[in-house]
Parts: sequence; structure tokens; C-alpha cells
Amino acid sequence: MATKPPLSADQIADLNAKHVNDLDRDYDHLCRQLARRGVDAEAAVAKVAAFSVAIPTWGAGRGGTRFAKFPLAGEPTNIHEKLQDCAVVQQLATVTPRVSPHLPWDTVDDYVGLREEAAELGLGFDAINSNTFQDQAGQPHSYATGSLTSSDAAVRAQAVEHNVECIEIGRKLGSRDLTVWIGDGTNFPGQQDLGRQFDRYLDSASGIYAALPDDWRMLLEHKMYEPAFYSTVIQDWGTSILAAQELGPKAKCLVDLGHHAPNVNIEQIVSRLHRFGKLGGFHFNDSKYGDDDLDSGSINPHQLFLVFNELIEAERNPRDGFDPAYMIDQSHNVTDPIESMLVSAEAIVQCYAKALLVDRDALHDAQDRDDVTMAFQALRRAYTVDVTPIVAKARVEAGGACDVIAAYRASGWRDRKAQERKPVGLGAGIV
Amino acid sequence: MATKPPLSADQIADLNAKHVNDLDRDYDHLCRQLARRGVDAEAAVAKVAAFSVAIPTWGAGRGGTRFAKFPLAGEPTNIHEKLQDCAVVQQLATVTPRVSPHLPWDTVDDYVGLREEAAELGLGFDAINSNTFQDQAGQPHSYATGSLTSSDAAVRAQAVEHNVECIEIGRKLGSRDLTVWIGDGTNFPGQQDLGRQFDRYLDSASGIYAALPDDWRMLLEHKMYEPAFYSTVIQDWGTSILAAQELGPKAKCLVDLGHHAPNVNIEQIVSRLHRFGKLGGFHFNDSKYGDDDLDSGSINPHQLFLVFNELIEAERNPRDGFDPAYMIDQSHNVTDPIESMLVSAEAIVQCYAKALLVDRDALHDAQDRDDVTMAFQALRRAYTVDVTPIVAKARVEAGGACDVIAAYRASGWRDRKAQERKPVGLGAGIV
Amino acid sequence: MATKPPLSADQIADLNAKHVNDLDRDYDHLCRQLARRGVDAEAAVAKVAAFSVAIPTWGAGRGGTRFAKFPLAGEPTNIHEKLQDCAVVQQLATVTPRVSPHLPWDTVDDYVGLREEAAELGLGFDAINSNTFQDQAGQPHSYATGSLTSSDAAVRAQAVEHNVECIEIGRKLGSRDLTVWIGDGTNFPGQQDLGRQFDRYLDSASGIYAALPDDWRMLLEHKMYEPAFYSTVIQDWGTSILAAQELGPKAKCLVDLGHHAPNVNIEQIVSRLHRFGKLGGFHFNDSKYGDDDLDSGSINPHQLFLVFNELIEAERNPRDGFDPAYMIDQSHNVTDPIESMLVSAEAIVQCYAKALLVDRDALHDAQDRDDVTMAFQALRRAYTVDVTPIVAKARVEAGGACDVIAAYRASGWRDRKAQERKPVGLGAGIV
Amino acid sequence: MATKPPLSADQIADLNAKHVNDLDRDYDHLCRQLARRGVDAEAAVAKVAAFSVAIPTWGAGRGGTRFAKFPLAGEPTNIHEKLQDCAVVQQLATVTPRVSPHLPWDTVDDYVGLREEAAELGLGFDAINSNTFQDQAGQPHSYATGSLTSSDAAVRAQAVEHNVECIEIGRKLGSRDLTVWIGDGTNFPGQQDLGRQFDRYLDSASGIYAALPDDWRMLLEHKMYEPAFYSTVIQDWGTSILAAQELGPKAKCLVDLGHHAPNVNIEQIVSRLHRFGKLGGFHFNDSKYGDDDLDSGSINPHQLFLVFNELIEAERNPRDGFDPAYMIDQSHNVTDPIESMLVSAEAIVQCYAKALLVDRDALHDAQDRDDVTMAFQALRRAYTVDVTPIVAKARVEAGGACDVIAAYRASGWRDRKAQERKPVGLGAGIV
Repeated sequence: MATKPPLSADQIADLNAKHVNDLDRDYDHLCRQLARRGVDAEAAVAKVAAFSVAIPTWGAGRGGTRFAKFPLAGEPTNIHEKLQDCAVVQQLATVTPRVSPHLPWDTVDDYVGLREEAAELGLGFDAINSNTFQDQAGQPHSYATGSLTSSDAAVRAQAVEHNVECIEIGRKLGSRDLTVWIGDGTNFPGQQDLGRQFDRYLDSASGIYAALPDDWRMLLEHKMYEPAFYSTVIQDWGTSILAAQELGPKAKCLVDLGHHAPNVNIEQIVSRLHRFGKLGGFHFNDSKYGDDDLDSGSINPHQLFLVFNELIEAERNPRDGFDPAYMIDQSHNVTDPIESMLVSAEAIVQCYAKALLVDRDALHDAQDRDDVTMAFQALRRAYTVDVTPIVAKARVEAGGACDVIAAYRASGWRDRKAQERKPVGLGAGIV
Repeated sequence: MATKPPLSADQIADLNAKHVNDLDRDYDHLCRQLARRGVDAEAAVAKVAAFSVAIPTWGAGRGGTRFAKFPLAGEPTNIHEKLQDCAVVQQLATVTPRVSPHLPWDTVDDYVGLREEAAELGLGFDAINSNTFQDQAGQPHSYATGSLTSSDAAVRAQAVEHNVECIEIGRKLGSRDLTVWIGDGTNFPGQQDLGRQFDRYLDSASGIYAALPDDWRMLLEHKMYEPAFYSTVIQDWGTSILAAQELGPKAKCLVDLGHHAPNVNIEQIVSRLHRFGKLGGFHFNDSKYGDDDLDSGSINPHQLFLVFNELIEAERNPRDGFDPAYMIDQSHNVTDPIESMLVSAEAIVQCYAKALLVDRDALHDAQDRDDVTMAFQALRRAYTVDVTPIVAKARVEAGGACDVIAAYRASGWRDRKAQERKPVGLGAGIV
Repeated sequence: MATKPPLSADQIADLNAKHVNDLDRDYDHLCRQLARRGVDAEAAVAKVAAFSVAIPTWGAGRGGTRFAKFPLAGEPTNIHEKLQDCAVVQQLATVTPRVSPHLPWDTVDDYVGLREEAAELGLGFDAINSNTFQDQAGQPHSYATGSLTSSDAAVRAQAVEHNVECIEIGRKLGSRDLTVWIGDGTNFPGQQDLGRQFDRYLDSASGIYAALPDDWRMLLEHKMYEPAFYSTVIQDWGTSILAAQELGPKAKCLVDLGHHAPNVNIEQIVSRLHRFGKLGGFHFNDSKYGDDDLDSGSINPHQLFLVFNELIEAERNPRDGFDPAYMIDQSHNVTDPIESMLVSAEAIVQCYAKALLVDRDALHDAQDRDDVTMAFQALRRAYTVDVTPIVAKARVEAGGACDVIAAYRASGWRDRKAQERKPVGLGAGIV
Repeated sequence: MATKPPLSADQIADLNAKHVNDLDRDYDHLCRQLARRGVDAEAAVAKVAAFSVAIPTWGAGRGGTRFAKFPLAGEPTNIHEKLQDCAVVQQLATVTPRVSPHLPWDTVDDYVGLREEAAELGLGFDAINSNTFQDQAGQPHSYATGSLTSSDAAVRAQAVEHNVECIEIGRKLGSRDLTVWIGDGTNFPGQQDLGRQFDRYLDSASGIYAALPDDWRMLLEHKMYEPAFYSTVIQDWGTSILAAQELGPKAKCLVDLGHHAPNVNIEQIVSRLHRFGKLGGFHFNDSKYGDDDLDSGSINPHQLFLVFNELIEAERNPRDGFDPAYMIDQSHNVTDPIESMLVSAEAIVQCYAKALLVDRDALHDAQDRDDVTMAFQALRRAYTVDVTPIVAKARVEAGGACDVIAAYRASGWRDRKAQERKPVGLGAGIV
């Protein structure tokens, strides 16, 4: 099927034309630099070209905090508009060919039609996300007491049923992963028995697991806190992996960079989950304090690099299979969401590219000899490289923009949409 | 003026009658126990009877997170209903005689009438809170770029003007403190210049300060993060006290228990602020992770006791005056807000009572002799006491309930209000 | 065998005599108070009388930091003197009948004789602790590159061998648990491959496991950081339980209160480990910042209570057996270690006693009805009780001191030992 | 005076010769790349050439934790050997021309001679560090109860006197800064009165301040915790700046990257201290958990870049003078300290160089327009640059090594010293 990307390919090409000579020169010089160290830049370009990360439909809209949300003129207000914006990201960045839908936010009457609509825009569907942390108008039972772990059996049944429905919809959309994140937990010591609450989780989750098609995975997402503030049922990777073990081989763990306790070594968690065959996916974002959902790599790009370093080690040593689902999961509170997704996609690919440049033979050799300085330098040398030419090369060759932000701004997309789309009203969590 | 409290005083008295003999026995035994140690329980009862803490009008409604808010049938939806609920708390707990309003949430046409309405319910007004972290319908300028620190002079002027208006309204209500908390900050490194942004704060805050009546105070409230996630302009007590010093003697610092970095010793901050004459007030709540706004003392009651220990030391050694404004500042996401305020008020008074029971001569003597064990035991012995009889004695003598929760539930208040008040719709921060 | 406790039983009895009437009065009043709520204080006394917690031999000496250690005149410098001091604690506190030895710090020629020596002092031996985080004079291989996870096979073999020797010695001493804590980890990203390093751990630990007698347990102790500062091999309960699962049924997890990331909900970890049959033991201490090793309950006694609340729930619901090894594990840097152990033992027993007083039917009922206020109050009512009379009653009945610190100071023990024992030199660290 | 650097300049030159063509090519290409953006690489080289950071004498030895210290064959054991090793660092890295001594660790009989000895090695002396956190053999009073804040006046007087003596020695050595870090604090709530303890600090510090020569500064170093674990007297920048304000204009604040609460925004603290004219210096290191003292930039190089970004803004806008003292302050537990200092110096200079490359006009313009994406990109574009050629160019031109680690290893320095120097015994801690 011929796709109809949202922006003018000619305009992108025209803009790229101004950069292409410089890009070639930079790339050639970088190739020579890396060749001196025995590193093959072209291999990295090929790997980068094959890399992709999903973007969530809700990431196309402005995010907010419990205090406020400041709407953006022209932001999308339904799944169709969100798909358009995601298609803009994919057209320019070329590494985000799939979107991850959220139900019931993205509910439509015709999912087969939605899949076609996406395909025309050059997009497919990635993991489907259920939502049992909010009440929807007309819903029989409230999730005020929790969802999969509620003490009320009717609430639990409703939450299981919603997840099963998500699987059904996901099948129509071409998904093969169901991501289950619940906000269940407590705000007071004693509010619930921590053990029995977890037993209810396992029981409910088994109900969902039973409905999974054979080629699907159920991705369990843990989070330390928020919206529950004393305890959270699936609070860390330990609980997550034990639950996944109980559920069965199709259950895997999903790591979100912002869902951990302060100071935790997240790259080590990646290593551990892989060691036990349970690393199912990754939600990319960044944070300084809590689950800040900031743009990927904006706060601690070195950590993102170290995570990719583990992912590449995992790929080279696939203990029980290694096929993680990658997604950007950010809240774009102060930027144009398209710009944040473009910048974040670039940051992610850059860290991936740097991790590809690590001389792994030198690294492993230094590790085996306990040459601490050289082992660290093996990573540091790769991190220090400016991989912009590698990433841009791969992107331009795929039809994307050399300078993604400049191309986006030149397109005038948001201003046009501000004329066409209906405005979003004020809103926030606490009023 | 004769007050008309919302609940039946007779019913409260009847319920108390069942407990009064046991209370007397418990109190008498505790007096004897404490007398053995040379501690005067009656003096503590007198101090407890003189203690009070304000409650915020918005605390009478259900709170929410950015993910969801689950409404409660019968919760108040305007300032008049909120005053009623606060009056219930005061009638039962007898330590919350003042409410702290929030503008524009509590906007009315007639503030003189509102003051009379509150007085009839047995309530006065405490510090007034401005709000420049949200946009209101019809507001000329958005706070999307910040408020007192926005790079846009028109936005700053609007934020200053709103605070000046709050002072005007507060004068009508009988307040004498203006609490200024702003959410201004950044989500990205480089988004704003950290130094110039703070200069703009000082400039704007000076404009507000200039409008303060002579007998008013301006309470600066710091917060580590949220809603800004990379940097916050008034991020800690250090910035807060430096700003207060720049502004002048009427500017003081307000400490909120949940607004600090992990592991920070908050009681020491209380001590430092007092040492430099800048401790202006306290927002009580509790937290385990971030600014969780949980019920006071529910997570770490010992910390609350240690804070009161510093407040009592400060009171005995009033370096530059000591008259802190106390307020409960919690988000009641999963309880009936009246119950949370009743329980929280009790927890706060209990910690205050325990701190009163510390044998300060023994404590200071052990400190001076570096007798670590005995210095610690001087605090621990007081913390260990079950002060329930002291607190209940003071409450019952003031006309409150012996068992506040039982009396509240017996009143049937919430069920009645669920019949009378209009329901609250669904809502949340992220949808 | 008749024991010869170190202090004069007569003197203790004389001192108790001054308190016994007041204690009886306090206890009787408490019994009446609790009876009103349907709680049986005598049952609590019986449970408290049956409770015990081990003390570590090294806890009898002054601890230090990397910056300094300030010796105490009269502190013990060998296992024989340490046993004496531990016997003083047991005689006064009566809840610490076992000591936990550390090898090679407590190495002697005759372990059978050491066991008799301890028995004469009224002491037995608890879990034995191996030490592969320090080099000892004359040791063939250094642990500079790690121990069980070193890249050097000879180092790993030495570390395994040391643990096997610990088991042999433990058998002679009457132990039945081996506690394995390693400091292995890295200070630099890339220093070691996180996955292969953990594989080496599993391989080495299996070698130790194979040497365990049938009735022994191997307790794996995790720690977030220190002495390694970028990554630690057994860094959290997730890695710990996965390792224990790999090793087999005799491998269990040991929780130390100070070894977690900031803000982590430790009581929930207790619940999870029990849920999967892997809760093997507990190291009691307290902390505000890191692995501070402060006295139990000195910083956050409510957390200690919540931990005991989980332990009691676990005891009532023993999924795969429940027989945790309890030990005090503190660094006594600024107090007389005997005083710290006395105060800590009391704090631990008090939190246990409070947890015993929880009305669990009311708690579970409120949980099942989602009555958040009442569920929390079920815990809070028990925490609020001053259980001093219950704990003192049990202690006095067992021959201990009513006021443990006063009795210890009256004994003049430390001053006598300062005359008898050889002085300790200046230094730093924990040995 | 002709200096006698420790390594063969010829060997360094020979090694450089192999790299110089490649370096020139890389540098030329980078110049062209940067010129396209309007950035002048040569200006950056000039600034880098003028940059320096002190290294501490104690950093030349192996560091340890409270658990253990693993000696390195050939590490220095006296100030003369330490100077030699520091000279090796300076010769190769060319940005560390000054050493910072620590008393009494570096005590000698002849300080004038020591200054000459250093000068011959190409070294001068930077800030002098006092030590009142450890007891020294033969010292009249112990610091067990604290030093400048001890409740014992004789202890305080001794601590003041030691600092005054440090100033005297520093004058002989050519220093002009005294760095005062104390470990004073408490391990128990109540151990000391937090207010009176701080008053004693101010009193003692005034005594030191009074002895400062006119052209000296007193640098106050704060630290959140360790060796004190409940409270620390100078615990954060807030207390530090208030103390510095009380003491007078020669008192400034020193920021150590590892001495803050988790998640704290350190670059903002730099900005605040500068805003109030009190930024006196910086201790460079890195950390993941606490005061880990890891190698600078090894964990979070982006944070180091953001700190330099603030320092450069401060330099361009020198509110009350701006002349910060920079020092590397690390504990080299697992590497050859010379290698760690070489790598750290390079990491620091690289982050400085990246911050120099920020297009500040573009940054400020985007900030003023609230163009969040472009403001962030202004920083990110500079951070992404591989500045290795700039830094290497400046180093080689100054006579240093192109590849510092390779040159150091080629010199065989450590092996030679292992033959010559006396071995260090086992132990723990930092001395």
C-alpha cells in the first residue's frame, strides 16, 4: 500500500540538500577516526538503520501535572489526529514506525479501519496499553479501591475483562504485546494486607494471561510510587519478575526509566532481568526526582548509554531470547510534543549508536584482567564520540530529515493544525 | 456572636459520656506515672488546650493525582460547603479554629459576608494562599511560562497583581499572612537561566512585599520539585531564606514536610530557620516518596515529634520572635477528608504533647555532658508515652468529641450531604 | 550447666525492687485499658517472653567510619571479652541469648571450648558470618578484585573455602545458619560485566551451598552499595531472591534495614520474601541516609513497628515455613556498645509488643471493607500504646533489670573493664 | 627555577609524535565543524590552556572504605612521595599545577623547603585543609565529641588552634585559602541541641576567621552526612552560606559534588551561591549513592557539564567577584591513583571545554523567547561535541601527553616505585 506521509517529502529533501555535503564530510572524518581504533562506522549505520522505538499515541498531546496542564494550540484531541502527529515524527525521524495505543483513550468503532488509516500514514501498532487506574463515564464499578487487586471481586473482574478486551482490539490492530500497568496500592499503613493484595494480583493477572494468544506477550510494568503513596503492588523489578515467573513464559517485565527508587542502578536491573529471561521491554524517558517523564536523555544521557550497553550485551548473549519492546513514554508538559518526540528519538538512537561503538573485545579483555582503568575507558571512549553523523546518515538515507527540528518548524505543521483542530480546555488534577 | 456549629452538641456529649469515666481513669494514671518522673501532665493539658492548627479550605474536598481523582459522594464543591465541613472538624477536634483560603478557588462576591458566615460556624481565617500555578478561564496571560519568574513582564505583573488582590481579600477576611508558593521552574537544562530567573523572582516578590500591611507577613514556601521537574526557582530552604532576607523583616519561610530532598533532616532546617529569625510557618502532612501529601504522622510520626521538639526549643528561646503559622496541608485521595483532618489533627496534637513532656533540664544536662545515651533517652521517654488521655482531656473540656471518628460517623454528616450536595464529576491531570 | 552471669544478680534484684510496685501498677492499668478494647496483655507478655534476637560479637566493640574510630576505654579486644560484654546485655535485657560470630575476627584454637565458655555466660551461638570483604595478614589471595565473584578463579576458590570453613566452625559452635554478605561490586561503569559477574556469584555460592549440612540455612544478605559504589552484585532483594531460588531450598534471604535504596518500603519486601518462602532473617538497625547502622528504632521506630506487623502476619500465615533469624547489626560509634545494645533490644521488643497488640480481626475486616480510616487506625491504636510495662514485666520475670541502663551503670562494668583490658589504638573502619 | 619533572620529557614527546598528525586532522575537522555553527574552537583551546584544577596530596594514595583498604604496591606513604606522584599527573595532564595539602597528614619540619621541593617538581600549593575529624597520637583532647562544635570548650579551642596553625603553615607554602570541613554532628536525635551546637560553630569559626590574612579566604565545606549519621552541623549549602554571611566577606562556600541529598540540583546551588557572592570553590568527584568520591565524570558527566555551564555564566556575570578554587577530591579505591587523577583531570577539562562551546547568544535568546526546545538544544549541541581534539591540543602544546594513560603506563613509574617505596599495611579508612 502506498503511504501518504503528512509532510512534503520534497521540502524535507530540499532542506537536507543544504546539509548533505557537510554531513558527508563529517561522516567521512568520523569513519576515519573510528577506523584508527578498529571500529567500523558503517556497521553502526546499518544497525542504527534497523533500530526502531514505538511512540505512544498519548504522547502526541500535552501532558500535565496534578497542578495544571497548559494546552497547546493545535494539539490533537482524538486518535486520528494523534496518528497524524505520530506520522510526522516518523517521517522526519524514521525510527518510530509504530504507535502504542491506550484504551479506552483511543477507542474507535472500527479498529480494522484504524489500522488501515495508520498504515496509510506509514505507521503500525505496537504494544497495547490497558487503563484501570481511572474511572470512565458509565463504568459499572469504580477503581477507587484498586483494579486487579481490589478487595471487591466485581471490580477485579471488570479490570480483567478490560484487559481481555484490549487483547481483542490489539489483535485487530496488529499488536502482539499487552502492557499492564496498574496504579493499585495504598496510601496508609494497614490500608490493605500487603500479602493478600498481591495474591489477588496474581489471580487477576492469571485471568488476563489465559486470554493471551500464543504469539503474544504480557508486559508487566512496575513503578515505585504514584498514584499510590505508601505502597504499590508492583513496586519494583523484584515483584515484577516474581509475578512474571508465576504467570508463565509469555509474561515478561517492562522497565521504565523513571519508575525506580532514587539512586538505583537501572542498567543492572536490565542485566538481571535478561539473565533470567524476563526482559520484555523498555519505556524511555528521563527524570531527576521521581517519575518525571522528561525527555529521554535530557537529564542523564550517560545512564541511557549504559542501559544500551547492557542491551547490546544482552543481544550478543541471548539467554532465553531477547526481543524487547521499546517505547518512548514521556509527558510533554512544556514543549510541542512532536518536537519532544523528535529530540528524544534522536537522543535514544545516539545512545544506541555510542553503545554500538564500544570495542567489546577490549572491554571484556580489560574486565578479565581487572584492568579497571582500561575497562572504563573502553566505555568512555565510545560515549565521547559525537555520533551525530552516523545517526543523521541513517536517517537521511531512510528519507528523514537531516535536522529534524528545523525541518519540522519549516513545515508549519503546528500552526496549520492550530487553525484546523478544536481547542483543548483548561484542566488539572487537583481542582 | 453566638456560633451555630454544624453537629448536635448533645449527641457529642452523649457519646462522650460513655467514655468519660475511662478517660478520667487513664488520665489520672498517666498523671501519676508522669509525676514519678517529675513531669506535670496538667501543664501539658493546658498547653494542648491553647494549641491550634489551621485547615485549608481545599482540604475538605477529595484530592487527586495526575492520573485520577475519585470523587466522594457528598464532598463540598464551593467555599460555603467547605466551611461547613471545616466547622465539623473544628467542632469535634477543637484545635482547628481557622481555615486557610485559596484564591481564586474560594472567590465570592462578598468577603465580609463570608467572614460572618465562617464566624457563625465557629471559624476564623488564617493565611491566604495565592495561586499562580494554574490558568483560570478568562485570564489575560497564561502561566505556562511561569508566573513571578516568567520571562514575560506582563505575566509577572499579572501574578504580582493577583497576590496584591489576595492581600486585599485577606484583609477583609481577617487574615494576616500571605502564603506564596509558585510552581515556577524548568523541565530542561538550559530552559531558563537559573540566575536571571531568580532575579526576576526577587523583583516580583518585592512588588508583593511592598503591598503588605505593617502587621502582615509574607510566607515563602519552597518545594524541591513538581510541577517543575528539572529545576524549581524556590527549591529549598536555602533559597527561601536568602529570598526572605532580601525582601525584608516581614518575609518569613514556610516549611512543608513533603517539600524536601530524600533523607533531609527537616527538624534541623526548623532549627536553622529559627536561628536566623525566619521561621514563619509549617505545613503539616506526611510522605514516603515525594510530596505525597499524606495524612500527618501516618508514615513517620517520630519525625513529626522531632519537629515539635525543635518548635518547643524555639519557643523557649525566641531569638527574633517566634509565632509560626501552622496548617494542615494534605491531599485526601482515598479517605473522607473530614476523617483525615480529624485523624491528622489528633496526630499533630499528640506529637506536640509528647514534645511537651520532654524533661528539658535532663536533656540539656545530658547534652552538655555528652552523655549520648541519656540525651537520646530524654527524648525517647517522652515519645514512648501514650498521650491519648492528655489530648482527649483537653478536647473534651473544650466541647469536642472523646472519640472523634466515632462521633463523626455517628453524626451521619457525609450521608446527609451526599443527598444534599451536587455530585462531582470525573477528572484527572493527564486526560 | 550452671551459668555464671557477669553481673551481680543481687544488685539487679535490689534495683528492681525500687520499681516493682510502680511497674505492677502501670502494668495493671495497661491490662485494664487493653481489656476494654478486647486485647489480652498477658498473652503479649507471654509472646514477648518467648522472643529473642541475636547480638553480633563485633557489636560489643566501638565501630567507626572511614574517617575515624574513637576507641572507648574498656572495650573488648578479643572474642572472650566480647562474650563477657554480650553476657552483660543478655543478663540485663534477657532477650539476647545468642551471639553471632564473625570469622576470622573471632578465630580461636578451640571452638568446643569457646562454646562452653559462652554457655557458662548464658549464651549460645547464632548464625555464623563469613568475611571475604577484607584481606587478612598472610592470606594467599587478595580480595581487591572481589571474592565470590572475582574474575580470578583462585580468589573465588579461596572465598568459597573460607565459607566452608565457617560452616565447619559453626557446627562446633552450635550454629545452624551461615550468613553470606559480600562487598563485591564495581566503582566504574564497565569495570566488570554485570551479567558474567553474577554468574560467577551463582557458581561460587553453589559451592558453599553444597557444603551446608541438611539442617542448615544459607542466608544471603543484599546491600545497595558500600564498599562498592557503582554496582553491587547482590544489590537488592530481587537479586537476592533469584539467587536463593537458583541455589535451592536451604538458601534464604536476609533483610538488613539499612541496605535499601532511599524511600523503599521495606515492610513490603518482608511480605514479598515471605510470600515466596524465602524470608530467612533480619538484621536490625536504623538509618537516616545510607547504611548508617544506627541503633534500632532510634530514627524511625514506626517503620520498625510496620516490619514487625508484617512478621506477625507472616507468622500467622506461614506459607513455606517461617523461622527468621533475628540479629541486631549496628555500629556503635558514639555510645558504650553495651548501652546501645540494651536500648536497641528494648526498642525492638517494644515494636514487637506493639505489633502483637494490633486487633487483627478489626484490621482485616476494615481492609476487606476498604474502610481506610479504620484499617489505619487498627495499626495506629496499637502503635500508640506505651508498652513499657509489658516489656519490663517480661524482662523482670526472666531475671533481667527493670531499668536496663540504670542497672548497667550501677554495675560499674565499663569502668572496671577499663582498668583490666588493654587499650585500643587509634584507627578507622570497623575492625 | 628550573623544574625537574619526574618523567622523561623525551619519552612523552616520542609517544606524542605517533599521534600528532591524527590529532591535527581531528582538530582541523572539528574547527571546521564548529565554525559552521559560528563557534571558535581556537578560543576554546586558549581557555582550556588557561584552566587548572588542584589535586589533593592524599589523592595520590589508595583510598578505602570503613570495610577495607587494599594497598597498591608503590603507593606513596609521605608528602615527598605524594608530591612526586602529583608531579607525574601535572607533567602528563598539564592542568594540575597545584597540590592541596592536608594537615597533619602532610606535616614536615621545614615548610619552606617543602615549597621549594614542590616547585622543583613543577608544583605549587593550593588551599590548605585542616583535619579535626580524627584524633592524632599524642593529641591532648579527643574529637570524639566533635571539634569546632564540641560541648567541651577545651576541645573547641584545640580545633581552632589547629586551624590557625594551618594558616601559618599555608602562608609558608604559598597557599591563600583555608578549607574547613568538620565531621561534627550527631548519631541520635537529642544527642545535641541543634541550635546551640551551631552557635558554637559560629563562635569557633569566628576565631579562625580572625586569624586569616587579608588576602586569604576561608572555604566552608558542607556535607549532608558521614561521619555523623543523624545530623551534621554544616549539612547543606543553606547552613554554609548563612555561616559564611555571619563570618564575613573572606568566608566563602565550597561545593563538593558528592555532599548533597539525593536528586538535588547541584548546578542550581552553584548559581545561588554565586548570586550571593559566596561561591568559593569546588571539589570535583562523582557519585551514584552517597559521598562515593568516585572519579569525576565517571557516573554523570552531563551533570559535570551543567555545573561548568553555570560556572561560565558566573564568570561572564561576576556579581561579587568570581575566583573559585577548583580541586579534585576523590577516593581511589580500585585504581592506580595517578591513573584516576589523569582520567579525572581529562573529564573535568572536557566538560569545561563543552561548556565553552555553548552558543550563549542563542541560548539566552531562546530563554528570553521561552523557546524551550531551542534553549535545551543550545546546551545539547555543545555537550554532544567530541572535544577530545581541543583538550589534547591544549595539553600537547603545554608539553603534556596526547594519550595520558598510555604515556603513564609506558613510563613504568608505578613498577619502579613498587621497588623503591616501603609497602603499606592492611587497614581500613582513608588514612
